[in-house]
Amino acid sequence: MKFETILLVIEVGGTLAFAMSGLLEAIRKRMDIVGVFSVAFVSAFGGGTVRDVLLDRRPLFWVQNVEYVWLVIALALTAPLWLKTFRHRLTESAMEFADACGLGLFAISGASIATAAGMPPLVAVLMGAITAVFGGVSRDVLCNQIPKVYQDHRPYTLCAVVGCAVFLGMNMLDMAPQVSMLAGIVVATGSRLLAVAFGWKLPAWPSQKD
Amino acid sequence: MKFETILLVIEVGGTLAFAMSGLLEAIRKRMDIVGVFSVAFVSAFGGGTVRDVLLDRRPLFWVQNVEYVWLVIALALTAPLWLKTFRHRLTESAMEFADACGLGLFAISGASIATAAGMPPLVAVLMGAITAVFGGVSRDVLCNQIPKVYQDHRPYTLCAVVGCAVFLGMNMLDMAPQVSMLAGIVVATGSRLLAVAFGWKLPAWPSQKD
Amino acid sequence: MKFETILLVIEVGGTLAFAMSGLLEAIRKRMDIVGVFSVAFVSAFGGGTVRDVLLDRRPLFWVQNVEYVWLVIALALTAPLWLKTFRHRLTESAMEFADACGLGLFAISGASIATAAGMPPLVAVLMGAITAVFGGVSRDVLCNQIPKVYQDHRPYTLCAVVGCAVFLGMNMLDMAPQVSMLAGIVVATGSRLLAVAFGWKLPAWPSQKD
Repeated sequence: MKFETILLVIEVGGTLAFAMSGLLEAIRKRMDIVGVFSVAFVSAFGGGTVRDVLLDRRPLFWVQNVEYVWLVIALALTAPLWLKTFRHRLTESAMEFADACGLGLFAISGASIATAAGMPPLVAVLMGAITAVFGGVSRDVLCNQIPKVYQDHRPYTLCAVVGCAVFLGMNMLDMAPQVSMLAGIVVATGSRLLAVAFGWKLPAWPSQKD
Repeated sequence: MKFETILLVIEVGGTLAFAMSGLLEAIRKRMDIVGVFSVAFVSAFGGGTVRDVLLDRRPLFWVQNVEYVWLVIALALTAPLWLKTFRHRLTESAMEFADACGLGLFAISGASIATAAGMPPLVAVLMGAITAVFGGVSRDVLCNQIPKVYQDHRPYTLCAVVGCAVFLGMNMLDMAPQVSMLAGIVVATGSRLLAVAFGWKLPAWPSQKD
Repeated sequence: MKFETILLVIEVGGTLAFAMSGLLEAIRKRMDIVGVFSVAFVSAFGGGTVRDVLLDRRPLFWVQNVEYVWLVIALALTAPLWLKTFRHRLTESAMEFADACGLGLFAISGASIATAAGMPPLVAVLMGAITAVFGGVSRDVLCNQIPKVYQDHRPYTLCAVVGCAVFLGMNMLDMAPQVSMLAGIVVATGSRLLAVAFGWKLPAWPSQKD
């Protein structure tokens, strides 16, 4: 598989996962149809757009691949159908799972694009984290709440950072990009899912103890 | 009239309309003078700035036309005079009207600039909607409230989208740009004013019914 | 001293000052470690990043000087040590002082970079204000509160604007850049500190009186 194809698959998967998380959050906030669409768009494209702007990449990834926009529109239009069936049973876990997938997929895509643009490793890790987290942060800002990822004391951004570090480390050891990307995604998404399943907590900020 | 002149008139009108809506909202939130200025600036220039950044246009429209900035400063400085006279009678309707004008003017300017930059129609519509809505969304984020356009169940972004679609459709039929732009603006602003006047509601999100 | 060296010193000082203000605010909001890091990053790099994006400067200042990122990481990692000692006694005044330093340093760096990029004086002043204020505004948006600088009726952005005006005025009189920059910083930071010390208030918005 070519590098571009891998990136494409990653971006489609991550886009759909984040769009769904935005859509569910907007519904919870009782937004109207346009609000639900908008928050789904921002959640799906926010992280990647900020990455592209910061790296000065044009056209933006969703302009170059307008199909992504149609995909999110299709997801939002068909959402009532599958939400009707699954809503009450699945909402919480579905959001967690979608979020974890988006997290891993976007983090590695961000880090690999930044590396391809010649960024040093620390910046590549930050770009991965921004790509992964900024969609969700924007979603929460639009929903007028403190970003969950900053306050719930559960590892999220940290999973993205660790996944990016694994990807970049394997990259430096000259592993095939497919292998190192897959490993990074598995580590980021997997560690997030484990953190949710086992209720791992980040240590409290030290000075808050006293 | 030249294409550039049309765009200029549109942008001046939209800028003033949105600056006024930001100004009134900031006053309502009891911000200080600097806060009122800042929110007026962000409301007026936020949408167009994001459009320019996303399309990678430099200089930004308000850097190229610094007069816009002076206009908003003049508006804010003279605001106490005309607000003293009109405040209690006009606030609600004045905000609705200014908002509707800004909506139509910015939407079509965004869509036409995106089209001129070679964007496909779907992206042009999105750029129109972003240009029209992002100033107001930023205003509400700075005022620490969920963006009204996402939650009040009244058509707003939708009017911008329909207006842009009319403009792009007439464009494809090779109508004169003046005609198609005017038509787009009338449809966007007009449908918004009708929606406000008659209390049109967006349908509720289907899955919220049960 | 070379111009680049001056800019470097300014940016390092401002970055550390703003990072600290973000860090203290995030701790107050009881965010987790990652949230504290993220808000510190956004407070430190938000203003300069927006300035660089608006002026289309790449690489971004913190990509070109990755040491800044390490500095903020080091600050955040060592924060528990010095916060333990100083917290209860110093928090309020420390935040005010750090904020005032960051304000002056970032404002003048923003204005001088904009001038070097050929911007007219009004735009240079706005870029200075954006560089100085946007980090703090983003910090408050992420902490889900109305930006303090918009609502506390104490001069803040105004100090940045006055400092930039002094810097630009002395620049036009062909003073040495070191002198005019230092003067601008002293005016901006100094006027802010005086405003805090003496409780200076901005006049209320006129129409709020009746």
